[in-house]
Amino acid sequence: MPTQFDPPSGTRDFLAREFETRERAFSVIRSVFARYGFEPLATPAFERLDVLMGKYGEDGDKLIFKILRRGEHEGSGEADLALRYDMTVPLARVAAAYGSQLPVPYKRYALGPVWRADRPGRGRYREFTQCDVDTLGSTSALADAEIICAVNDVLAGLGIGGFRFLLNSRRVLAGLLEAFGVPAGLGGGVLVTLDKLDKVTPAEVTVELAARGLPEANAASLVDAMTGVGAAERIREALKSSDEGSAGLDEVGALLDLLTGELPAGRAVFAPAMVRGLSYYTGPIWEVSAEGVPGSLAGGGRYDHLIEQLGGPDVPATGGSLGVERLLLLLPEAEGHSRLDVAVTVMDQRYAPRSFAFAAAARSAGLRASVYLGSSGKLGRQLKWTSGRPGR
Amino acid sequence: MPTQFDPPSGTRDFLAREFETRERAFSVIRSVFARYGFEPLATPAFERLDVLMGKYGEDGDKLIFKILRRGEHEGSGEADLALRYDMTVPLARVAAAYGSQLPVPYKRYALGPVWRADRPGRGRYREFTQCDVDTLGSTSALADAEIICAVNDVLAGLGIGGFRFLLNSRRVLAGLLEAFGVPAGLGGGVLVTLDKLDKVTPAEVTVELAARGLPEANAASLVDAMTGVGAAERIREALKSSDEGSAGLDEVGALLDLLTGELPAGRAVFAPAMVRGLSYYTGPIWEVSAEGVPGSLAGGGRYDHLIEQLGGPDVPATGGSLGVERLLLLLPEAEGHSRLDVAVTVMDQRYAPRSFAFAAAARSAGLRASVYLGSSGKLGRQLKWTSGRPGR
Repeated sequence: MPTQFDPPSGTRDFLAREFETRERAFSVIRSVFARYGFEPLATPAFERLDVLMGKYGEDGDKLIFKILRRGEHEGSGEADLALRYDMTVPLARVAAAYGSQLPVPYKRYALGPVWRADRPGRGRYREFTQCDVDTLGSTSALADAEIICAVNDVLAGLGIGGFRFLLNSRRVLAGLLEAFGVPAGLGGGVLVTLDKLDKVTPAEVTVELAARGLPEANAASLVDAMTGVGAAERIREALKSSDEGSAGLDEVGALLDLLTGELPAGRAVFAPAMVRGLSYYTGPIWEVSAEGVPGSLAGGGRYDHLIEQLGGPDVPATGGSLGVERLLLLLPEAEGHSRLDVAVTVMDQRYAPRSFAFAAAARSAGLRASVYLGSSGKLGRQLKWTSGRPGR
Repeated sequence: MPTQFDPPSGTRDFLAREFETRERAFSVIRSVFARYGFEPLATPAFERLDVLMGKYGEDGDKLIFKILRRGEHEGSGEADLALRYDMTVPLARVAAAYGSQLPVPYKRYALGPVWRADRPGRGRYREFTQCDVDTLGSTSALADAEIICAVNDVLAGLGIGGFRFLLNSRRVLAGLLEAFGVPAGLGGGVLVTLDKLDKVTPAEVTVELAARGLPEANAASLVDAMTGVGAAERIREALKSSDEGSAGLDEVGALLDLLTGELPAGRAVFAPAMVRGLSYYTGPIWEVSAEGVPGSLAGGGRYDHLIEQLGGPDVPATGGSLGVERLLLLLPEAEGHSRLDVAVTVMDQRYAPRSFAFAAAARSAGLRASVYLGSSGKLGRQLKWTSGRPGR
């Protein structure tokens, strides 16, 4: 039952223990990215409305929190600012604003809250933490590999096990559409349907493909090729007939070669049915799936034209996004921590200054220390204070 | 000249160097407060509009950023949420929401951005970092002393020197008004005028007091007592005639006794003319002034009824606020830092995987390392990359 004292729907207060669990995870993320030479970037909580509107599609636009104009214009009910919706549009703006001051390539990470006016639900918030890591200005597969290795190190550093990187390439997917005779106009829709192969049965996907207008024979052979044992091999074979598909396979192969030496065996695998929802990817794409965890823990890929489309300069780019809130759910709860190393009682108020000085001395020695601040002279009460929470 | 790519007026982007300077300072603040047993608290960026409105006076209300209702109500132009304006109202809400789960006393700090629709100017932002430290649930002078010592340690930890705590008490001020025959109805206004003694001449303050309706003789003797050599002694003398004033002197004396052992000599002084603007203080008040810095670096005091007035439970409280943005301006600029310890060149793309592996090995050894991600095979270009920023 929400009360008038709860935080707004879809948001959370973080008291000490949860705050510290989160901060510990954030500190792992920051230190891994720093080790790869990614720089931190922090942009304001809000942007000008026109910077955000129209960048996330019609559905996205509806989820943007808009801020009313202030001063004499308040009465108009018009908005001129909006809360940050993701980290990518601010990155495009920053790339445009500071272009010549930024290193080339510009490798940055951004870790912080974003806001979306989504319907709140289990694990879905209106204020949640997002973490993106991106490299602008490099077309090299090394840049893609670096992002994947960094994300791998973050997950490992957080103590998460049993996860795999599913690798694919937009060019492999384009080759597939070509090899299985999918008309150009149907391509986008067909990919959206194929993306469901990990959620619904092959038969259902076939039916949906047919409903999209793909001849049933093509639909069946496409789904056959992509499912069951040996799918990757069958697809490799089928892609030989497509230049784009062959190039995509080479791209994935080169990436796997780079990763092989650095990641544990089997950590990264070719997953030709992995589509990723977003249409802006142009090259390698990847997703992290973990045993027993629905959805992905992280995902990303190369998006060579997006920064320009979002209003930034025309630079190649590759990056990834961590599902921070989902990752936090997988972490072991923080050990019951004591707030203090030294709790100094005050049995007689006349000697309070001595107790105060004693706590200060303990702090000087690097200990967390505090003096009893209550008015009771009873030892029991003061011991209760040292034990922490009164509610337990 | 602002461009379309600049962040919104009154806000800032923090690129690597500035971000790291700020984070270093924040980390000092967090570790000092933790050492005193203060817990972190993070509340959402926005609150329900009714939680904030009416809490900051009429002028404050105008500076609250309001967020439009979403969904079907968007067209109404009505707001139902508002950006956090300070850390105190959220603290009152949290104290009401989690009362029995919080330790007693509840010692917390909050460090994060707040938003005010102020006219932006030199050093005045619409998004800026605030840091509050407060103890709820203790009437003890030890609690006041603890806050002051913690703020002292933060300032010292940041490397700031030449600062002093000016101590006073609301009860001293009440006694002063009594001793100099200020009618009750004029008290608040007289204090506002006396607060200007550090900015304008005594004669000007006298004129303003008279304009407020204080008989000129009383105004002149009040200002005389509070200025010039020996003011503190003259005020001590005058306060003997007032019970409230005497109690206030005892309060300040007890606080100074507690601080004497812990702070360097002369760090905390009785400053009977120090008023602090806000009317909600009920006991000891303090401000940190530093040589050559206009205004104060931090300030606070006891405010035993405010939490209840703001919608929280009826608890005694004492706390302080750091002028974080002002403090940051005083810090030495961060040393020119290299983003990388090891920059690995790629002189021939065929051997890129080896360079990639070498960078990974360096990272495993705890170094910050990255491989060259560009396409040039020229040593000069790659050396330029290792040197950092292309713009310099």
